[in-house]
Amino acid sequence: MNVVSYRPTERDLAYTFGGRPPVGTVRPGDVLELYTEDCFGGRVRSVEDLPSRVCEFPYLNPVTGPFHVEGAEPGDTLALHFVAIEPARDWAVSTTFPHFGALTGTHTTAMLQPALEEIVWRYDVDADKGVVRYHARRSDFTVELPLDPMHGTVGVAPGASEARMTITPDAHGGNMDTPELRAGVTAYFGVNVEGAMFALGDGHARQGHGEVCGTAVEAAMNTVVAVELIKGVVTPWPRLEDDGHLMSTGSARPLEDAYRISQHDLVTWAAELTGLDTMDAYQLVSQAGQAPVGNVCDTNYTMVAKLPKDCLGGPAVYESAHDRLRALGRRYLSER
Amino acid sequence: MNVVSYRPTERDLAYTFGGRPPVGTVRPGDVLELYTEDCFGGRVRSVEDLPSRVCEFPYLNPVTGPFHVEGAEPGDTLALHFVAIEPARDWAVSTTFPHFGALTGTHTTAMLQPALEEIVWRYDVDADKGVVRYHARRSDFTVELPLDPMHGTVGVAPGASEARMTITPDAHGGNMDTPELRAGVTAYFGVNVEGAMFALGDGHARQGHGEVCGTAVEAAMNTVVAVELIKGVVTPWPRLEDDGHLMSTGSARPLEDAYRISQHDLVTWAAELTGLDTMDAYQLVSQAGQAPVGNVCDTNYTMVAKLPKDCLGGPAVYESAHDRLRALGRRYLSER
Amino acid sequence: MNVVSYRPTERDLAYTFGGRPPVGTVRPGDVLELYTEDCFGGRVRSVEDLPSRVCEFPYLNPVTGPFHVEGAEPGDTLALHFVAIEPARDWAVSTTFPHFGALTGTHTTAMLQPALEEIVWRYDVDADKGVVRYHARRSDFTVELPLDPMHGTVGVAPGASEARMTITPDAHGGNMDTPELRAGVTAYFGVNVEGAMFALGDGHARQGHGEVCGTAVEAAMNTVVAVELIKGVVTPWPRLEDDGHLMSTGSARPLEDAYRISQHDLVTWAAELTGLDTMDAYQLVSQAGQAPVGNVCDTNYTMVAKLPKDCLGGPAVYESAHDRLRALGRRYLSER
Amino acid sequence: MNVVSYRPTERDLAYTFGGRPPVGTVRPGDVLELYTEDCFGGRVRSVEDLPSRVCEFPYLNPVTGPFHVEGAEPGDTLALHFVAIEPARDWAVSTTFPHFGALTGTHTTAMLQPALEEIVWRYDVDADKGVVRYHARRSDFTVELPLDPMHGTVGVAPGASEARMTITPDAHGGNMDTPELRAGVTAYFGVNVEGAMFALGDGHARQGHGEVCGTAVEAAMNTVVAVELIKGVVTPWPRLEDDGHLMSTGSARPLEDAYRISQHDLVTWAAELTGLDTMDAYQLVSQAGQAPVGNVCDTNYTMVAKLPKDCLGGPAVYESAHDRLRALGRRYLSER
Repeated sequence: MNVVSYRPTERDLAYTFGGRPPVGTVRPGDVLELYTEDCFGGRVRSVEDLPSRVCEFPYLNPVTGPFHVEGAEPGDTLALHFVAIEPARDWAVSTTFPHFGALTGTHTTAMLQPALEEIVWRYDVDADKGVVRYHARRSDFTVELPLDPMHGTVGVAPGASEARMTITPDAHGGNMDTPELRAGVTAYFGVNVEGAMFALGDGHARQGHGEVCGTAVEAAMNTVVAVELIKGVVTPWPRLEDDGHLMSTGSARPLEDAYRISQHDLVTWAAELTGLDTMDAYQLVSQAGQAPVGNVCDTNYTMVAKLPKDCLGGPAVYESAHDRLRALGRRYLSER
Repeated sequence: MNVVSYRPTERDLAYTFGGRPPVGTVRPGDVLELYTEDCFGGRVRSVEDLPSRVCEFPYLNPVTGPFHVEGAEPGDTLALHFVAIEPARDWAVSTTFPHFGALTGTHTTAMLQPALEEIVWRYDVDADKGVVRYHARRSDFTVELPLDPMHGTVGVAPGASEARMTITPDAHGGNMDTPELRAGVTAYFGVNVEGAMFALGDGHARQGHGEVCGTAVEAAMNTVVAVELIKGVVTPWPRLEDDGHLMSTGSARPLEDAYRISQHDLVTWAAELTGLDTMDAYQLVSQAGQAPVGNVCDTNYTMVAKLPKDCLGGPAVYESAHDRLRALGRRYLSER
Repeated sequence: MNVVSYRPTERDLAYTFGGRPPVGTVRPGDVLELYTEDCFGGRVRSVEDLPSRVCEFPYLNPVTGPFHVEGAEPGDTLALHFVAIEPARDWAVSTTFPHFGALTGTHTTAMLQPALEEIVWRYDVDADKGVVRYHARRSDFTVELPLDPMHGTVGVAPGASEARMTITPDAHGGNMDTPELRAGVTAYFGVNVEGAMFALGDGHARQGHGEVCGTAVEAAMNTVVAVELIKGVVTPWPRLEDDGHLMSTGSARPLEDAYRISQHDLVTWAAELTGLDTMDAYQLVSQAGQAPVGNVCDTNYTMVAKLPKDCLGGPAVYESAHDRLRALGRRYLSER
Repeated sequence: MNVVSYRPTERDLAYTFGGRPPVGTVRPGDVLELYTEDCFGGRVRSVEDLPSRVCEFPYLNPVTGPFHVEGAEPGDTLALHFVAIEPARDWAVSTTFPHFGALTGTHTTAMLQPALEEIVWRYDVDADKGVVRYHARRSDFTVELPLDPMHGTVGVAPGASEARMTITPDAHGGNMDTPELRAGVTAYFGVNVEGAMFALGDGHARQGHGEVCGTAVEAAMNTVVAVELIKGVVTPWPRLEDDGHLMSTGSARPLEDAYRISQHDLVTWAAELTGLDTMDAYQLVSQAGQAPVGNVCDTNYTMVAKLPKDCLGGPAVYESAHDRLRALGRRYLSER
């Protein structure tokens, strides 16, 4: 097992997918130990640290990377398996942010109403107990919520010579903000440029569906990913696989288009895997499919279409990459 | 316990909420045993029965009712507890329908492409085993899926002297098509007209999230509901309660507006129940809230915002109507 | 020429399309002289009269009618020609209204921000000079704008036993709020119920595109309409015709769906009128078509698709109803 | 007058805004004579040249540039005045394209229906007569339409280190596809990077509102632009000015957000120019404003908000850049 460790300094952080040289090279089969900063670059540390004061646009939502994957070429699929996602600090933060979030006017849903108040909430993170603790700002109400670490942002360089802000999710991945991207999951991305150039960041100690206020329980993470490359297999939109489910993602506006993309991809993928006629697959997904909401606050919204594998008779996907990576991840965890 | 049984003939069925005289009167505390037809009025019985041939617009999606609730006045809230929802036949059907569904052009998402093919799937319903069986039409693929009965359509007469097709979900309820509306759940509706005038129908043996092809596993149902009235309490959009969760619904287009309505209602409801500041409630719902998709195919789309009660310290809502109705329902079931 | 005059009292006003008995009967060929109240029922008379205080929901946007048209049956088309639309007073008003308008959160685009301020603007109407005068509320800025009278709301009873608030535009017409509905124009509506049951109201002394703040320069009107019936001809969405143009309307959310409906109808209508292949008509409308925005504030948004008749070789539409009605209208005006 | 001529070879063409070195440098006050290729790179020359065969993604919608403007820094505004836009050939083309356009499922409005047929229409361009001639493909129908040349695509490098495909319109400009961008108009862009890095292309001999089939009457152009720089003045979204009007653009999805952005910018701009209170400006724009549709087919949709200058008392904007550039353009035209 080839294990590579990488911890970026502040000036190593990236704010786009695409348009950046790699910070390192990895080979299929490698395991990477990475540190990722939170979406505020670690600058929001107390309830006094308003993001609009301590952060500077566009230096938001930093990612660790990009990494050049040896042998990756356009038309291939990159498999990133999340072995572990562990909060790096015993606290995390969430905030409102002027003109950002689902229940406020924004830059594009432009309104004449004044912005909502900017407020910071600081959470205690208790990894041993497996909880985060919420504290109300204007009363002494407090409650524990389950710790459920995930990465909001992961992706590859986009095609067509584009470079996109890390805050935007699209066909290359990016800021999908789905709680489904947790440890134990393999993410698949279509490779658009030589080397794939993947990066990740924006850890969340946990997140509600849609990230309605615009931010999750934002946390720096120590994350371990295992890498594989599936040559000559095209992946149109990011897909996820866990032990029991296949998932397709879609990112667009309005939200129904994110839903359409993800369901369309799942239907056609299911047909391809099983030999079912497309209309038969459409019917099966219609009755057995789930649709976990990713984000309803970013520059594109994200939906996930999710299907239990046993509905399809448990087909092998992507040359069984998930099973191999899962085994590799377990071996890594048992040895560390 | 006052138990009322009602089985409509074909000509008793209603196709609108509002604009119809009641088929009967019930009192708060009553238990109703109802029969509801499927969304095709029971006319699609085999894979040969194409809905566009055997059904006639607008005689689709019939509901049983409306029922006049004694004492219900505008400004009150009607509580309908679903004691049991049981498939009335050992088969159910699903179909595509020309220009209906999420992955096709429609009447309003108007396109020049020809319609998708109209196809019927017939499911076996095995209530004892708790499954429905899917059969592909163009191969011999077949799979069992869990039975999870629900009602797609339930609501009261709308306000402002409106009458709305049963296929439309809006603030009065209607065709929300959410799998959360299953047995064990209490649904709350704001009363808009004297007597509330509730009705229900469109049973589903099960449904995927979003009802992507436009129909679920459509089934006639034998359903038992228990009724209560909460006087002088306003409910802006339909809400649901189960033993562990509070839920708000929103129905609109585009889909993000359905999400916004449901989340906004849940945030303000949570603030009201706990005394939390609105911004504190916004933050808590952002991290702890779920967002099950209802439908992404009807004339309005429906989203549900869902929160575990224990996040809020387990407050009593609607004068504990759910607890009382749950107990009444259990008593009914044990006695029948 | 059979001329019928009708002036409703306050209690004769209607607030829905559908679900109401007729206030009178007219015959094809009749000319109607009607009085219509403004959208506030005439209650907002000075800048002190805030609508939320002087008006009572749902008694907003009253229409005059409905009128039963002799011989009209489902499947026919009603032609309403606007002979004259003349402000009935020398003043008019516009307002913001809490949670209504395109640049504010609303009932369905639900937000946590407080409502915009409710303000009334009173316009002077000078019919002789052909202008309205705007006065700023918070400075002495004032400017004259061209008078361009129109009706925001006109339609027939919807199908499927529905009754809809007059504020909603849909396939039956209603509150389309398009400046294209001015004198000299013939509007065509598909008949859904026996007698068609048309009504109109919501006069505007003028209106910007989209009615962005939620209201236009709202005015009571003395309006003259001439009526014809085209038997056995179906009209799927309201259409307009003036001396030089054919227009299709679409009302839906999101706004692109209103655009799609209107363009789809214009494309297929153009193909039908000329014998062009649908794709050829699609191309022609793509290059020659206009798309005046109706409203972007109501419960459905409205777009208009507009094509110069000479692009199509000047075809006769609806059995040349517009030409006949135009001639009848000119005769009426010359004789009065 | 400093006049610079530039004609790109095929390999000089750019396919992104941002991420490219400049092809030349210009100074404020310069006049540029440019050649721009059509959106197909000139490869679609007859009705046999289907774009999906003769073009290769992502080499679509080429632009001429980028040009580095001496002295331009983030926070400035670039003024580009269109002196002349003249078709470079006596023919032009339009096409449908699989899964592109407003009346078909697309990459993001994902549907299971098969694509519309791909068809090419070839137009004759008669600059002297001022017309283009449409020929139906499946009949001998033909009609002349007014020539009205414009550029679909013009913009500067985006901020935040992004590079965007030229097909996407956003705050940096890009593929706005508005017929308002014709000769005689000055376009204003906020500068995001040193040198501004503007580019333009995608000439249209004419275009309908919304470009409903996905393409206009696509034409190579000989275009003359005059350049100015307004130092220290921020422009949030592209704005246009002609002799009689001020215009704001907005590009987003859904279409109502493009409308909101453009109207919001026009309202706040009008308030700033006149000293009107924002709510007073909101009211004035609501009654006097127009809303020409740009595109309803690209990756973002574009709306324009347009106001006659005399509504505002004819204020000077951007230090009267339009007047100076208009005069410069007239001098250029009289001298050539």
